Amino acid sequence: MVIDYTRFLSGRVNYVESSPIREIVSKIAKKSREVGVISFAAGEPDPDVIPRKLYAELSRDVYEDKRSVNYSPTEGVFELREEIAVFMKKYEDVESSIENIIVTLGGSQALDLIARLMINPGEVVLTENPSYVNTILNWRQWGAIIVGVKIEEDGIDTYELENIVRNLKNSGKVVKLIYTIPTGQNPSGVTMSIEKRKHLLEIASKYDLLIVEDGAYNYLVYEPVVVKSLKSMDSEGRVIFVGSFSKVLGTGLRIGWLHLPELLAEKFRAAKGPTDMCAPVPSQLLVLQILRRGLFEEIRSKAIAKYKRKRDLMLKAIENHMPNLRHTKPIAGMFILIWLPEYINSWSFAEEALEKYTVALIPAEPFFTDGSGKNVIRLNFSMPPEDVIEEGIKRITILLKEKISK
Amino acid sequence: MVIDYTRFLSGRVNYVESSPIREIVSKIAKKSREVGVISFAAGEPDPDVIPRKLYAELSRDVYEDKRSVNYSPTEGVFELREEIAVFMKKYEDVESSIENIIVTLGGSQALDLIARLMINPGEVVLTENPSYVNTILNWRQWGAIIVGVKIEEDGIDTYELENIVRNLKNSGKVVKLIYTIPTGQNPSGVTMSIEKRKHLLEIASKYDLLIVEDGAYNYLVYEPVVVKSLKSMDSEGRVIFVGSFSKVLGTGLRIGWLHLPELLAEKFRAAKGPTDMCAPVPSQLLVLQILRRGLFEEIRSKAIAKYKRKRDLMLKAIENHMPNLRHTKPIAGMFILIWLPEYINSWSFAEEALEKYTVALIPAEPFFTDGSGKNVIRLNFSMPPEDVIEEGIKRITILLKEKISK
Repeated sequence: MVIDYTRFLSGRVNYVESSPIREIVSKIAKKSREVGVISFAAGEPDPDVIPRKLYAELSRDVYEDKRSVNYSPTEGVFELREEIAVFMKKYEDVESSIENIIVTLGGSQALDLIARLMINPGEVVLTENPSYVNTILNWRQWGAIIVGVKIEEDGIDTYELENIVRNLKNSGKVVKLIYTIPTGQNPSGVTMSIEKRKHLLEIASKYDLLIVEDGAYNYLVYEPVVVKSLKSMDSEGRVIFVGSFSKVLGTGLRIGWLHLPELLAEKFRAAKGPTDMCAPVPSQLLVLQILRRGLFEEIRSKAIAKYKRKRDLMLKAIENHMPNLRHTKPIAGMFILIWLPEYINSWSFAEEALEKYTVALIPAEPFFTDGSGKNVIRLNFSMPPEDVIEEGIKRITILLKEKISK
Repeated sequence: MVIDYTRFLSGRVNYVESSPIREIVSKIAKKSREVGVISFAAGEPDPDVIPRKLYAELSRDVYEDKRSVNYSPTEGVFELREEIAVFMKKYEDVESSIENIIVTLGGSQALDLIARLMINPGEVVLTENPSYVNTILNWRQWGAIIVGVKIEEDGIDTYELENIVRNLKNSGKVVKLIYTIPTGQNPSGVTMSIEKRKHLLEIASKYDLLIVEDGAYNYLVYEPVVVKSLKSMDSEGRVIFVGSFSKVLGTGLRIGWLHLPELLAEKFRAAKGPTDMCAPVPSQLLVLQILRRGLFEEIRSKAIAKYKRKRDLMLKAIENHMPNLRHTKPIAGMFILIWLPEYINSWSFAEEALEKYTVALIPAEPFFTDGSGKNVIRLNFSMPPEDVIEEGIKRITILLKEKISK
């Protein structure tokens, strides 16, 4: 008897979409095993910029600690939560007690918990268009309707946002949350201006919304500008802050955190306990060592110096070789978004770039909330070695010229 | 304006119960910071039995690997999945391809994913009564109705199970899954006989059910008996196997796995990707090093020798000091369940044991699916040092005598 496993699946499976990027990512991985590929496809830091030898050394202290191999409390190792509260003051200008802090499996689990506990199927979440593909896919698993709002060079169009909120509310839709990556946004690289941040908070107050601030790229800002977190400007308690050490200390560690009002923190802790027990404890203790010894700032400033150079090289190459294309000019994060001519399909463009020119890039369409963005590509500048960046852009330009001349 | 955060919560919050054990566990932690406590409360291995120095040494190779600080594929590091497939053959007598294997954040995340993708609210899951409290709490978050079936010294009462399935189906209830910890069950310590395992598989076949086999304690068996996993006896593909390295290599690492039919594996992978990205990569690579170098068996056999001695000491002390009480005699796992006289409430008993006699134990009621078990306590024997075990049991006996004489 052959078992029909689909009969055993829950209705929730209908909300699960396979990541559209998965296929191109595995093609890139396969190609990279065969030949040298210049990859602008990553969404994470360069492993050679991360002090892995130091991590190995610190691991002696990590495993010296008996707690390393046992469960931690579900909200995280106590001293790490203390250090994160101090970190929130130093890096985000946010006063917090450890009661506000829950350590999570990267920002991802924090976002999953938010959807689990705050979104009923059919409710609307507003976000930048485009926005982070994994939040879109995860929140859709929870039945959220994701409505994207145009993004400009200085962040989300807050006027359009307000119009949309008003229209949705008038048409009887439930809108409770705005999800934003205000600094070094993924995939656009855009950073929201202070004025827009203020306006966003005003809108949240006026329409009684909460804001989920994804601060994943907050610690990779390349220009001497003041970038204040929404949370630090939040006088009413409307911002839930999702923090992450991933982009500086490494995504593999899987350490992020939630900064929540205490009432919510209690519910989140109750839900989290039997769901995952706790975040990986050796990773928690490693981050604790790094914070305690004041090493974070050292690691971060080295990373910033390197990624800034890579960003500059990529922007210069784009401006030299593809001067007529619209693209973003990030002051933070890891990404540049490029709009190809409308008639070019970014999926086949990415495939050809990989197959013919061994350059990897990511079609940005899945980041768009409304099926647009078919001609848009995302380039990452944190991962590729400096000396291949211009060559990669050149190859993309050659392919582009082939496409245009056709 | 004070924000009413409850207004922002989803309906799902109604299914979230705070763990009833949380309060006693934090009292135990607090007391332990003040005075010496003999603790039988743990649910995990002894950190002094785990070779933490070795882990620190292996961390050099772990962090030498560039992949350590980046995301792995959501289904896990490729070579680790290969090693787990080999492991499944060696330890579970199960043939598997890496397509069946998904590395998870301990067994916990595997169980959460199963509920996410397979349980609709209102559907019934059958399990041992008592069963693992965190699975009960987690699956209830997903709206599952947990129905417990009496457990005997050789495992779940399969005849009663069949009756219950028949009655539930006749009354129109949807029953799709049986959840079982067949070896060294938590909290009872009971191991299911081969006959019952066969019968359970027959029932699953007859009523078209799937079985979720939680193998958390499969690698801690203390007697030279043959304990075959349900998965190894599963000719029809009805068993989803949840594996874990937690009880041998340490719960803190958070490395477990799912062994799934390929069709399900594809859905699980799609759901998991945007939910957590991946399990912690340094932990994955550490386990990979341990498996590759053939160190697992060495670590395991040392653990077995130590926990067997501790189990023997505890059983002997119980039989000497409390000869008239019903208790389980585990051949595997970490726990002994004791039935106190019916009129004794295990919650106040546990509080008094802690306050007056500085012995920590866990009231087992939350593990019962039906509100029974109010007089039952769970003792852990893996964590306490050998030389305090008899003293701890003696103190419990003194308290017991006080209670009985009243």
